[in-house]
Amino acid sequence: MRIKVAQFGLGQIGKEITKLVLSRNRYELIGAVDKDEGKTGRDISDLLGLADKTGVVVTESSREVLKKKPDLVFHSTASKLSRVHEQLRNIMEAGANVVSTSEELSYPYLQEKELSEKLDGIAKSSGVTFFGTGVNPGFAMDLLPLIFSGVSRTLDKIRVLRIQNASVRRKALQEKVGVGLPEDEFEKKVRQEGGHVGLIESVSLVATGLGWQLDEIEDWTDPVVAEKKFETEYFTAQPGELRGIDQTALGRVDGKEKVRLNLQMYAGASNPVDEITLEGIPNLTLKVEGGIHGDIATPAIAVNSSQKVLQESPGLLTLLDFYPYLYNFE
Amino acid sequence: MRIKVAQFGLGQIGKEITKLVLSRNRYELIGAVDKDEGKTGRDISDLLGLADKTGVVVTESSREVLKKKPDLVFHSTASKLSRVHEQLRNIMEAGANVVSTSEELSYPYLQEKELSEKLDGIAKSSGVTFFGTGVNPGFAMDLLPLIFSGVSRTLDKIRVLRIQNASVRRKALQEKVGVGLPEDEFEKKVRQEGGHVGLIESVSLVATGLGWQLDEIEDWTDPVVAEKKFETEYFTAQPGELRGIDQTALGRVDGKEKVRLNLQMYAGASNPVDEITLEGIPNLTLKVEGGIHGDIATPAIAVNSSQKVLQESPGLLTLLDFYPYLYNFE
Repeated sequence: MRIKVAQFGLGQIGKEITKLVLSRNRYELIGAVDKDEGKTGRDISDLLGLADKTGVVVTESSREVLKKKPDLVFHSTASKLSRVHEQLRNIMEAGANVVSTSEELSYPYLQEKELSEKLDGIAKSSGVTFFGTGVNPGFAMDLLPLIFSGVSRTLDKIRVLRIQNASVRRKALQEKVGVGLPEDEFEKKVRQEGGHVGLIESVSLVATGLGWQLDEIEDWTDPVVAEKKFETEYFTAQPGELRGIDQTALGRVDGKEKVRLNLQMYAGASNPVDEITLEGIPNLTLKVEGGIHGDIATPAIAVNSSQKVLQESPGLLTLLDFYPYLYNFE
Repeated sequence: MRIKVAQFGLGQIGKEITKLVLSRNRYELIGAVDKDEGKTGRDISDLLGLADKTGVVVTESSREVLKKKPDLVFHSTASKLSRVHEQLRNIMEAGANVVSTSEELSYPYLQEKELSEKLDGIAKSSGVTFFGTGVNPGFAMDLLPLIFSGVSRTLDKIRVLRIQNASVRRKALQEKVGVGLPEDEFEKKVRQEGGHVGLIESVSLVATGLGWQLDEIEDWTDPVVAEKKFETEYFTAQPGELRGIDQTALGRVDGKEKVRLNLQMYAGASNPVDEITLEGIPNLTLKVEGGIHGDIATPAIAVNSSQKVLQESPGLLTLLDFYPYLYNFE
């Protein structure tokens, strides 16, 4: 049985998910939704740069696509639950399961407890499962550290460092981290819009998985400023302009720092890496030199998660549902 | 509510599990079973080198301990299902959940399909869950590579290298890999006893998780011979004698190598490491320099898994039940 799939949102992540879906026999693409007039009315293959027509035409009407009864909707429209919950309700009430890459949905209970519980109820009464995932949040700074902590007898602190070279990331991400903006626009354009969404979700997921009750989560973002000129495919940062961000989120228990996540995303980063350090017994560091490229990994993780998601009981899932070492250190 | 725990098997792994259980508030140790006359009749604290008596006396009688109705039994007696299935049946029929570190139980369906299905039936009718785990098999060469593969869009091959310095491992492991034996006893004492049990289970778990139907698993073990003298706490390998093993297991699909696991465990290994390589899109390597010490990690993983195991539906679980990226590449 092939899985009938619809794609909601055709930004770069949505397009890459669609390509992956088309490349795997297990899936059958039956619809694609985007509100952008430059995309609607066209065969999806045009947007993806594929030679063969798929017969799937991009439409603005989610209603039209949901009528075709997809088993599964891949959802990548916006980062915040408050902006997408109506979409999600419609999808689930139409009987489709959902895998979303919206960052806040990796742990929606943190920011939107009430709304999340409502959506969990809708998922259950509709008999569908909902899962928010991606590489970050969803993998590099939460699931992978949690899995790694399985080897810990005692754990005093867990630290994650993720450095991404923004130069090779998608345009929307370069924009989000402010590549090429004058430094004095950092405050307004980057920090106030929250920088990267999802870091505090990751802190919260890690702590919850470990059984740690955080008394606070602190989160701040600093600018990374160009000392020389950096050019990307989309932007140029002159000396004094922004290369990107250096963001930290940390969680404390009884005033003691227990979880520290540092995410650096800036143009020309020469040492991209994913690094997880367990401080305790044993002391261990896991390292992926070069780092896990977010725009490659997020679509992969979304599609790779989907078969398991379809097997799970109805409701709103988080990565903690797939994490075997629950509450190790409670 | 504290979890009432009994420990079956007080070799080094069992002893370390017991220590960990005693150190965590969530657990209450109510019994410990071993057949060794040197251990029975003594307060478990004596065996563990703890100052305070626990009141738990080691007994040979599993019946006596099971009468106390433990919620959970940690089981670490022997590596092979054929040797332990009677123990497991008794435990489960007494209503206790089981976390076992017996290597073959990481994926018992591979070697003992019928017996596994029978045990799965007993678990279900007894309303308990059963989970076989440890660092290897159970983590370093199967779960961690599977989790890491979540970032893959395409995966041509997955390779894992694990090098452990046998000098710092427990005596039973040094014995198993033949440290200090004359080279000509390798064939009889090491290879014929199967070397490290679990590597083919790991190959099979990885392939199954990825949705790959292997046409064969090949498994061989070579000796690592001392060129100079190596001394451990327990054994001495003179030049020409065994330092340990270099074991490889590989799985092929349509004649093509897809999974390659190489496990090196020998005295004096100077470069211990856990290294996982994904060949595909993207190409990525994950590395834990120094390696994950098996005798530290296995007890941790067993205890860390237990709360999740208690939440699961009855039956015989494998790590695939906790793995979110099922069948990615089918």
